[in-house]
Amino acid sequence: MNDGRRLEAIGIDVGGTFLKAARVGGGGELLAHLEEPVQKASADDLLSQMQEAVRGLEDGSAAHAVGVGLPGIVDSTSGKLYNAPNVPVLNGLDIGRELGQRTGRPCFAENDANAAALAEAWMGAGRGAERMLFVTLGTGVGGALVFEGRIWGGRSGYAGEIGHLQADPGGPPCGCGSWGCVETIAGGPGWERRARAALPTRASSLRGAPLLDPATIVAAALQGDALALELVDGAAAAVGMGVACALNLLNLDRVVIGGGVARAGEFLLGRIVEQARRRTFPHVFADAQFRPAELGSDAGVVGAARVALLGAPPGVAS
Amino acid sequence: MNDGRRLEAIGIDVGGTFLKAARVGGGGELLAHLEEPVQKASADDLLSQMQEAVRGLEDGSAAHAVGVGLPGIVDSTSGKLYNAPNVPVLNGLDIGRELGQRTGRPCFAENDANAAALAEAWMGAGRGAERMLFVTLGTGVGGALVFEGRIWGGRSGYAGEIGHLQADPGGPPCGCGSWGCVETIAGGPGWERRARAALPTRASSLRGAPLLDPATIVAAALQGDALALELVDGAAAAVGMGVACALNLLNLDRVVIGGGVARAGEFLLGRIVEQARRRTFPHVFADAQFRPAELGSDAGVVGAARVALLGAPPGVAS
Repeated sequence: MNDGRRLEAIGIDVGGTFLKAARVGGGGELLAHLEEPVQKASADDLLSQMQEAVRGLEDGSAAHAVGVGLPGIVDSTSGKLYNAPNVPVLNGLDIGRELGQRTGRPCFAENDANAAALAEAWMGAGRGAERMLFVTLGTGVGGALVFEGRIWGGRSGYAGEIGHLQADPGGPPCGCGSWGCVETIAGGPGWERRARAALPTRASSLRGAPLLDPATIVAAALQGDALALELVDGAAAAVGMGVACALNLLNLDRVVIGGGVARAGEFLLGRIVEQARRRTFPHVFADAQFRPAELGSDAGVVGAARVALLGAPPGVAS
Repeated sequence: MNDGRRLEAIGIDVGGTFLKAARVGGGGELLAHLEEPVQKASADDLLSQMQEAVRGLEDGSAAHAVGVGLPGIVDSTSGKLYNAPNVPVLNGLDIGRELGQRTGRPCFAENDANAAALAEAWMGAGRGAERMLFVTLGTGVGGALVFEGRIWGGRSGYAGEIGHLQADPGGPPCGCGSWGCVETIAGGPGWERRARAALPTRASSLRGAPLLDPATIVAAALQGDALALELVDGAAAAVGMGVACALNLLNLDRVVIGGGVARAGEFLLGRIVEQARRRTFPHVFADAQFRPAELGSDAGVVGAARVALLGAPPGVAS
């Protein structure tokens, strides 16, 4: 498709609290941006909000395509959204089709972590990599694989679940149905659970802390608190084990680590890399570069726009 | 390439003890076969033996290509063989290039487990799968990934090492430099180590057994020996954990399990599948079919021939 218009797509990032959207150029430029409280009383409300966002962001001419990042699993066979507890009104819907009917634009839906991974691969810390693992450390531990610039979703689009590799065979039950998953240790609630279990018997500056979140614990570790350091190392070992699994299975060339917990910085990331190194074939480890994510809160809309460009008719995506 | 000749390739499987070779048709038919003690006093001896095998198997007209399965890592960037303790004279050589110069045929080298995986994907238990994990259970625990009929080797050809995912964070050191790897538990020596550790304090029919190999232990478990059953379940849990990692990371549609230990049969394989199921997202588990390998000892030469056909000029491989 080349009708003389500038190549532009709209990216929409649907979160549980905010809806973000942007008009993005074919070279990844952010041209216009909006952020609003998400309207999620009904599917119709939310689809109408997305439709209005597209209309508001289009600058006199139709966008080539629209991409939507969604906080759940987008089944690649049916196109339907599943497991979206933060926007339950959209569960079971084919958002690409629904929004396409409303806007008249080609619309494509993708899991939001996959969209962020595509954004990093396109414009961020994954540039130049052919085989990238993206890890998000937040309340949950998520992941995505980007091979040659596209999401590698596996049979139904569910691939990349590094948070649910088993890091501790004796660990606690996980919401996924298994137990001892990386996420039970290195997800936000895992940090708090481990801190609460240890505090009664340990001297620590964490005692009496109002929050036992990763940022608080990392800050205490940086001040030399021994228990906090153990908690950091426990999370680093779990994530490092998961990353090592991915490296030994896939001989990747890039690992990008993002998410709110990753913003605790080099202190945590360096420990994750070291724990991965200890569990990985040396020649496989040497093939991989580790990088913190670069795009921050823009990754969602930029990635959704990339989904649009990749999904649009042949020749549109570079 | 279509000059009226039947499409045929030569596959060579170089083992530490035997060299096997076969002429294989483009549809996977085994047309001629040889098996000899491997001549490995020098690289020249072994390359000469391979050259003679090609000459002996060609039936009046040149094979389209020759594939060689090697018991080590074939670096996909340099083409050189590494980590081949059973044929050390070949270490560091680009066998495809060397044999090509000797035979005048296009020659392609590949790791032997990868070749066996390609054979299963082409003619065996992986037929029809787009995303297959092949697991070999033997003295070691090996693996390979076949995506859309081709090996997915990662950056340097090292992908697929399911035997070196960490199954037990408190486990013993592994030869790979890590510890608690799947192979330390489910490889042949891992079965024996666990049996020897338990026998002094446990009543078991295994006491006094001349060999503590997987076949003996599985046979005792089938007779109701409680310790033997625990040992089987330990191996099944380790392999099942590794398979679950691969499924949650890759959302595969086929898992093929082969190797000498796998021939212990359904009793072991069923337990591996159950242990994988317990650690895998239900919808991801449901996407995967589990099958025992079908090709047995022919997998090596058939797979090497497949390597040849895939490596040969465009249009040769179907």
